[in-house]
Amino acid sequence: MIIIGIDPGIAITGYGVVEFINNKFKVLNYGAVTTTNKINLPERLEVLYKGLEDIFHRYKPDAVAFEELFFNQNAKTAITVGQARGIAILCAQRNGFNIYEYTPLQVKQAVAGYGRADKKQVQQMVKMLLNLREIPKPDDAADGLAIAICHGHSSHMGDMFKIK
Amino acid sequence: MIIIGIDPGIAITGYGVVEFINNKFKVLNYGAVTTTNKINLPERLEVLYKGLEDIFHRYKPDAVAFEELFFNQNAKTAITVGQARGIAILCAQRNGFNIYEYTPLQVKQAVAGYGRADKKQVQQMVKMLLNLREIPKPDDAADGLAIAICHGHSSHMGDMFKIK
Repeated sequence: MIIIGIDPGIAITGYGVVEFINNKFKVLNYGAVTTTNKINLPERLEVLYKGLEDIFHRYKPDAVAFEELFFNQNAKTAITVGQARGIAILCAQRNGFNIYEYTPLQVKQAVAGYGRADKKQVQQMVKMLLNLREIPKPDDAADGLAIAICHGHSSHMGDMFKIK
Repeated sequence: MIIIGIDPGIAITGYGVVEFINNKFKVLNYGAVTTTNKINLPERLEVLYKGLEDIFHRYKPDAVAFEELFFNQNAKTAITVGQARGIAILCAQRNGFNIYEYTPLQVKQAVAGYGRADKKQVQQMVKMLLNLREIPKPDDAADGLAIAICHGHSSHMGDMFKIK
């Protein structure tokens, strides 16, 4: 099963592509689709859409997974992230993939074993679980991988969450 | 010049289609693309994208205009509206249209003559300026028309704002 985890943002959208077979993960790719603020918002959204579509076409995932957003920050940031997230979800949907969503708690529990793990601990566990030499960069890519791991574990246990 | 003003939302996205010739407005259409919460978010975003694309193809606008979002509400609402807004902007961009954005102040000034006009006054002025028998429903459609009027007046005065 090929899983892509996505951590959307307008400047940096992180992604992680993993294969999950016999309860083992293999990293196929990770990275980020980035957009510059030198182009306008509609162009940035289009760059994001096309960048993700390229990745989807290359790996033809069995599942695309997102983290549910919980926001304490200001509404302006939430709108900006929301716009990028809408594009990423639409792109997966229009290309016919199965889409799932997990809470930050579920992702942390799946990756680090407990829901109060901090960012650094989650990144260390991503590195360990995937046998990587270093913590994946940028952080958004590590987050994408963590979300993909969460879906792998969840599908194994039969409790995947289809996005609502 | 054909202008489409859009007021995005996940459940209701209002739109207004006007023709602006010789400093006069003619309404071509207005209404809303609606989505039900009985389908999941990816499906709703796709319904919205396709619904707007139909309207864009039908009217081939010279300009698609949005209002800048200012949010006092909670971040969850901001994320939801942001997702819908991202879809609407992407749809206009992928179909090759010119996209503009105005602040709520600019829209109120253009439609009602002063920036502190309330929602009801703006709706009344939309009705008057467009020679409509009644205030357009839903409110989101009236907002779409107000944004379209704003762009018409702004383009006439040479101070359109390309979305940033």
